[in-house]
Amino acid sequence: MRMYDIIQKKRDGGALSAAEIEWFIDGYVKGKIPDYQAAALCMAIYFKGMNLEETTALTFAVRDSGERLDFSEIHGLRVDKHSTGGVGDKTSLVVTPIVASLGVKVAKMSGRGLGHTGGTIDKLEAIPGFCTDLPVDKFKEIVNEVGIAIVGQNASLAPADKLLYALRDVTATVDSLPLIVSSIMGKKLAADDDCIVLDVKTGSGSFMKTPQKSKELAEWMVEIGKRAGKRMRALITDMDRPLGYAIGNSLEVVEAVETLKGQGPEDLTELCVALASHILELAEKGNYAECERMVRKAIEDRTALDTFAKMVEAQGGDKEWILHPELFPKAKFKHTVRAKTKGYVVSVDTESYGVASLLLGAGRNTKEDVIDMAAGIYLQAKTGDFVNEGDPIAILYSEKEERFAAAEAKLLEATKIGENKPKEEPLVLDIVE
Amino acid sequence: MRMYDIIQKKRDGGALSAAEIEWFIDGYVKGKIPDYQAAALCMAIYFKGMNLEETTALTFAVRDSGERLDFSEIHGLRVDKHSTGGVGDKTSLVVTPIVASLGVKVAKMSGRGLGHTGGTIDKLEAIPGFCTDLPVDKFKEIVNEVGIAIVGQNASLAPADKLLYALRDVTATVDSLPLIVSSIMGKKLAADDDCIVLDVKTGSGSFMKTPQKSKELAEWMVEIGKRAGKRMRALITDMDRPLGYAIGNSLEVVEAVETLKGQGPEDLTELCVALASHILELAEKGNYAECERMVRKAIEDRTALDTFAKMVEAQGGDKEWILHPELFPKAKFKHTVRAKTKGYVVSVDTESYGVASLLLGAGRNTKEDVIDMAAGIYLQAKTGDFVNEGDPIAILYSEKEERFAAAEAKLLEATKIGENKPKEEPLVLDIVE
Repeated sequence: MRMYDIIQKKRDGGALSAAEIEWFIDGYVKGKIPDYQAAALCMAIYFKGMNLEETTALTFAVRDSGERLDFSEIHGLRVDKHSTGGVGDKTSLVVTPIVASLGVKVAKMSGRGLGHTGGTIDKLEAIPGFCTDLPVDKFKEIVNEVGIAIVGQNASLAPADKLLYALRDVTATVDSLPLIVSSIMGKKLAADDDCIVLDVKTGSGSFMKTPQKSKELAEWMVEIGKRAGKRMRALITDMDRPLGYAIGNSLEVVEAVETLKGQGPEDLTELCVALASHILELAEKGNYAECERMVRKAIEDRTALDTFAKMVEAQGGDKEWILHPELFPKAKFKHTVRAKTKGYVVSVDTESYGVASLLLGAGRNTKEDVIDMAAGIYLQAKTGDFVNEGDPIAILYSEKEERFAAAEAKLLEATKIGENKPKEEPLVLDIVE
Repeated sequence: MRMYDIIQKKRDGGALSAAEIEWFIDGYVKGKIPDYQAAALCMAIYFKGMNLEETTALTFAVRDSGERLDFSEIHGLRVDKHSTGGVGDKTSLVVTPIVASLGVKVAKMSGRGLGHTGGTIDKLEAIPGFCTDLPVDKFKEIVNEVGIAIVGQNASLAPADKLLYALRDVTATVDSLPLIVSSIMGKKLAADDDCIVLDVKTGSGSFMKTPQKSKELAEWMVEIGKRAGKRMRALITDMDRPLGYAIGNSLEVVEAVETLKGQGPEDLTELCVALASHILELAEKGNYAECERMVRKAIEDRTALDTFAKMVEAQGGDKEWILHPELFPKAKFKHTVRAKTKGYVVSVDTESYGVASLLLGAGRNTKEDVIDMAAGIYLQAKTGDFVNEGDPIAILYSEKEERFAAAEAKLLEATKIGENKPKEEPLVLDIVE
């Protein structure tokens, strides 16, 4: 086989065979195929797409490019929840302790954030002492004892995805359905879970800007997961507004803890309840209504919070910070952003909110950047709220005062205020199973 | 500027500014922009194209990426002739001595062949002692004295083209109009000629498979050459059959010499006369009819052959080989390919003829390959000829007998024999000026 022929075939709109796709991934991971040929192929895929068979083959090739995990020593059904990434999305921190407290196992490998979406691992590292790099035996032991452990992604897991993602990120080829599907599912399938629930975001703060495109992405991921023998479900959820009020690492942990106590924002709480209920239904813990009752009870009686605190403790973190979130240090500087006119918040550009948070120091521009854990945004007005001129719409936090100006400008530009109250949109737009 | 934004803009169908294109070429030549980003951009250009303004900017950026030649020390009008490359195309060896013998100057920089089309420089090196790597002062001196010199392309000339072509060659992005235009014209414009006549091939043995596409290519090159202040003309010529009978380096030199003596094949002779006449007309040596008469006379009275012999001598070659071409050594082995059925040669796939010649050792698969100067094909029947079963259609030459089988199979497969005599097509299909 020659890489040239594979590029040319895709460029001319042909469908690659599984053998060709496997040969490419194997050669690329081994360094036999240079980046420039992989980049040309990614751009050809961007334009010509891949059918479901090709995308399945690519996903499986990515999955098989490194180590495959073996969780057979973990007792009970293993579940995972994956979000395609959104602004202020701290659902993993809420949903996983809830379901773990209700008898399924969560052995979660999570990524770090790059760009405006902070990763779950980054958020957990806001808790002092919390170790995200456990030996695999210790990891399994904690999952068996506590029901849940969350660690960073193993470097030997799906190395093809790391290489390809880094390449796509600098060649304007991220935004391609088959490449997104194979990247997400290649990693997920290399882990050893029984059920996977996907939270596929749609709207201004996500990969996919329309519900149709998000649904297509969800359908492909669900189908490919099933082909790999997993129980699958996907929720299409709204990302045209940030989730909750907090954006930024320790701010989001605090909000997640409040939600686990039953005192969180309504939108965040409802999405977490829905995701947790779907996971439990998929794990055959009851029908959806029964699962939802169990979830609400686990929040009410604090067994979910207790499970979270136990996990933090087992992974070396200080559980007092979870039980008393006021212990999280505040940023050195804060600044209130005020409305320039009166009216309803008609719409916001969620992605710009994420970028504003990045400008404050809450995310990474490059892999080497160090995150400012206390930096971020606490919203004071969300889509549908009425504000008078001069009313606060957000409080900004940062260790560096000079960062406020750019973040404030970005935030104001992204917040559209108008005369008419916008229609209320549901948070869960569709379910794919 | 960021390369990412440039790739994305082109990917989304935008037109790049001259500043963006210049920034890319400058950064790429300096090694600041990696191959993988350049490859992604080339593939985006493959799909989205470039308008004339972008292509002009890219051509000028390629031209300006290295040294610009200064031929002001050469006395008289300087002309160049460029072919987009065809099978058995030895026109440069015939046309340039003709026009030089008629009072215009030819200071020609020529490329080596890669793939099935051998370069003019490779062909000239079949002459013992011929030096294609002269110091620039010596080069200009010979042009002033003899009227013509032909050397290999200076490495410092248009380095962006060398880098880009090598990249396109392995990423399936060669076949793109703006990239072809900027590659050819970027190099041509870095030299210092007054008039350029282009021989744009069309058909199975060329870049462009249809006259429409070839005409478009010609129009863009002519327009961009004029924008750079050159007198320009292009001929669209047929490459649905090889030119002359000889394919392969020393075989082609011999055929070129025969043509300069007035004893060459009719198609080759007529194309050379046309190209030479157009060059002279562009150089204001007379109207076309007058120029054609001068050209035919320069062949008849052997002043063109004499000029060629003088150039060979001035460049260190043995001019006896030009005056007595029977001195060129024959290949060690020869093999006759015979028709399997009787009928007219209805059509041939010219590119496959080129590949057959490559298989015999006449071309390079990689830059490091050494050419077998005596290898090649001498045709015995061309499109329109009638053959009986068993009649020779070609004689193959090679230093390695084992190469005949594959070349013969390729040749037979590429030669279509049928009942009806095909319509005779003109050799010059169109003129663009």
